[in-house]
Amino acid sequence: MKRISSRATSFDVAALAGVSQSAVSRAFTPGSSIAEEKRAKVLEAARKLNYVPNSIASSLTTKRTNIIALILGNMGNPFYVHVLHEFSRRLQALGRQVLIFTVDPGSESDEAILRALQYQIDGVILTAAQLSTRMTSLCHDRGIPIVLFNRYIPGSDASGVRCDNVGGGRLIAEAFLAAGAKSFAMITGDPKGTTSQDRVRGFVERLMEEGIRRSEIEEVGGQSSYDGAARAALTLFGDRAKPRPDALFGINDIMAMGAIDALRYRLALKIPDDLMVAGFDDIPEARRAPYKLTTVRQPINQMVEQTLALMHLDEPDRPIERGIDMPLASRLIWRSTIPVPPAYRSDVADDAGMDEAG
Amino acid sequence: MKRISSRATSFDVAALAGVSQSAVSRAFTPGSSIAEEKRAKVLEAARKLNYVPNSIASSLTTKRTNIIALILGNMGNPFYVHVLHEFSRRLQALGRQVLIFTVDPGSESDEAILRALQYQIDGVILTAAQLSTRMTSLCHDRGIPIVLFNRYIPGSDASGVRCDNVGGGRLIAEAFLAAGAKSFAMITGDPKGTTSQDRVRGFVERLMEEGIRRSEIEEVGGQSSYDGAARAALTLFGDRAKPRPDALFGINDIMAMGAIDALRYRLALKIPDDLMVAGFDDIPEARRAPYKLTTVRQPINQMVEQTLALMHLDEPDRPIERGIDMPLASRLIWRSTIPVPPAYRSDVADDAGMDEAG
Repeated sequence: MKRISSRATSFDVAALAGVSQSAVSRAFTPGSSIAEEKRAKVLEAARKLNYVPNSIASSLTTKRTNIIALILGNMGNPFYVHVLHEFSRRLQALGRQVLIFTVDPGSESDEAILRALQYQIDGVILTAAQLSTRMTSLCHDRGIPIVLFNRYIPGSDASGVRCDNVGGGRLIAEAFLAAGAKSFAMITGDPKGTTSQDRVRGFVERLMEEGIRRSEIEEVGGQSSYDGAARAALTLFGDRAKPRPDALFGINDIMAMGAIDALRYRLALKIPDDLMVAGFDDIPEARRAPYKLTTVRQPINQMVEQTLALMHLDEPDRPIERGIDMPLASRLIWRSTIPVPPAYRSDVADDAGMDEAG
Repeated sequence: MKRISSRATSFDVAALAGVSQSAVSRAFTPGSSIAEEKRAKVLEAARKLNYVPNSIASSLTTKRTNIIALILGNMGNPFYVHVLHEFSRRLQALGRQVLIFTVDPGSESDEAILRALQYQIDGVILTAAQLSTRMTSLCHDRGIPIVLFNRYIPGSDASGVRCDNVGGGRLIAEAFLAAGAKSFAMITGDPKGTTSQDRVRGFVERLMEEGIRRSEIEEVGGQSSYDGAARAALTLFGDRAKPRPDALFGINDIMAMGAIDALRYRLALKIPDDLMVAGFDDIPEARRAPYKLTTVRQPINQMVEQTLALMHLDEPDRPIERGIDMPLASRLIWRSTIPVPPAYRSDVADDAGMDEAG
C-alpha cells in the first residue's frame, strides 16, 4: 500500500508560498493563467515540501486527465517512431503526456481504444489501420476526439490528418517517366490501409495516362517492413530469365531501403544504373549515404499541428469536428536513386548540415 | 464537458450478465482470478451496454492506476525504440500501459519524474541518464518502484538492470586484438552516463593489458547519434597526413553505423580491409546488408523480464528492493566488420531467416 501518512497537501503549499490554494492548483494546470512570479513561488514551496499534485484525483472534477492515447501499429517503420517522438515532445510541452497502445499491424484497433477509454483519456490519435464505427461513436459520445493520423477510413465519422497520397504516387510516376523508365514494379504495404491504396492508385493512374496497362505493372506486398520488402524485391527481380522492370516504387521509405539492400547485396544490381527506386515519407534514414533515396516528403510538423488543432485540448467543451479530411500537399525530394532529368537539376535536395533530429 | 447522462454502470453489466458487481470489477482487473466463462459473459454484457470501466476512478480505492512511466532520453537510437516496443508489448499483455516522458539526452530526469508522479503511476522505468537521490526517495516514499534500465547511478538507491558493459568492452578489444589490430580509436557516448563510461573502461583496460598506453587510444564524442558519429569519424580519420588507427569502436551500434557510412562514402575507406569497426547493442539494424556489424549483444528480453520482476506489479505491497545491480552477461556477435580469426569461424552469426521484428 502506498504511504499517504504525512504527505503535504496543496493547502500546505499555499500557506508556505503565501498564496491561495487555487493559485497552487493553477500553477500545476497546463494552460491556466498565473503570473510567472507567483508560479515560481508555488513551485519552490512545493519542492521544499516534496508536494506532488494528484492529477488523477483532480481529473474526477475537471474531467481532464491530460493523457492522450496514441495507438501505434508498426514501430518497425521509423516513420511512426518519428511521429511518436514529435507527439510526445509537443504534447509534453503543452502539459500532456502520451499513453502508448500497440496493435499488431493490420489488425483492429477496437480493443486498444476500449482499453484507452478506461484511462479516461482526453483524446485518441490513431496511426494503426482499422477502426469500427462503433468505437468512433463510443469516443464521440464521451466527448473524446479521435484523430486518424496518416490515414482516413471511408464512411468513418472520425476526422483525419494526412498528406495527398494519390498526388504523391503521381509525383513518383512522373519522376520515373521523366527519367525515361518504360516498365514498372511496386512493393505495396497494408492492403486494407487507405495510405498504401492511395499511393498505388496515384502511381498507377499516372502511368495509365501514358498508355501503360495496369497488368503490365508488377506488384508484390512487402508487409510495410524492411525484411518483408527485401523478400519482395527478390521475388520481383530474382528470376534473371524474366525481363527486369526499369523502375521500382516502394510505397514507403523503409520498404524502399529493404529493397535497395536486397537488390545491391543479393542480386548485385546498381542503383539507379540498372534499376531506379523511389520511396515515400522522407524519413531521416532516407538521407543516409547508402540510400540517398528519392522520395515524397510528408509534412510531419504540419500534420502534427493539425492533429493537435483537431483535438482542441484547451477547449474541451467545443463540439468535436467530425469527418474532416483535408489532405496536405506532398512534394518530391530528388536525391540519387532516380537519374535526375536536366529540368529537375535545381530541385535536388541539399541535405548537408541537416541532422536527423532536425 | 463529457456527457455522463445515461451511461451504463458496472451494476447494469452485472445484472445483464447475471453475475455479481464484484465479478464485473474482477473481469476488468489485470491479474485477478475469475473463471474464463464468467469473464466472457461479463465482456459480452459490457459490449452490449457500451460499458467501459473507469480505471482512473477505481485507482482512488485500489491505489493502482495500471500506468507505468517510461522515461526516454534518445529516440534517435533504435536501441531505445526496441526497448520501448518490448515494454509496451509486455506491459500491455499484463493489463498495464506505458506513459511516455521524453527528456533531452544528457539532461536531468527529475522534472519528468515529478510529472510522472502526478499521474499516480505504479512504477517508473528510467532509460535517460541522470537522476537525483531526492527523486528516488520521492518515488520510494510513495511505494513506487523506480528501475534504471541499461544503466546504474553510483550512490543511488534505485535498482538497475543492465548488461556487463565493462565485460562487453573487453570482448570488443579482444576481438580487435585477435584480428591483429595494433592501433585503436573510439567514438564515445554520453560522458556522464555509466553505460558509455563502462564500455570505454573495459575496452581500454583490455588494451592496456597488452601494453598499449591510454594516451595512444584516440577518442572523440559522437553524441550517441548517427550524425554525431559520422562527424566524429571525419574528425578522427579525415586528416590523411596522420597515421590511421586500425580499429574503431563505436560504443553503440547506431554510432558505429554513422561512422561506417562516413568512412565509406566520404573517405572511401574499405571495411574491414582498411579499418575494422565494432559496435555495441546488436540492434536489428546492425544485421542489415550494408553493415553486418560485429557487435556485443545486449540480452534485451532478459533485461525487460528482470525490470518487470523488480517492479512486482502484482504485489504492490511487497517492499521495494533498493540498490540492486546485477549485470547480465553480454556476448560478442561476429559478423563482417572485423576479419574473423580462424579460432572464431564457428561463432559467426547466422542471421538468415531472422526478421528484424523477431
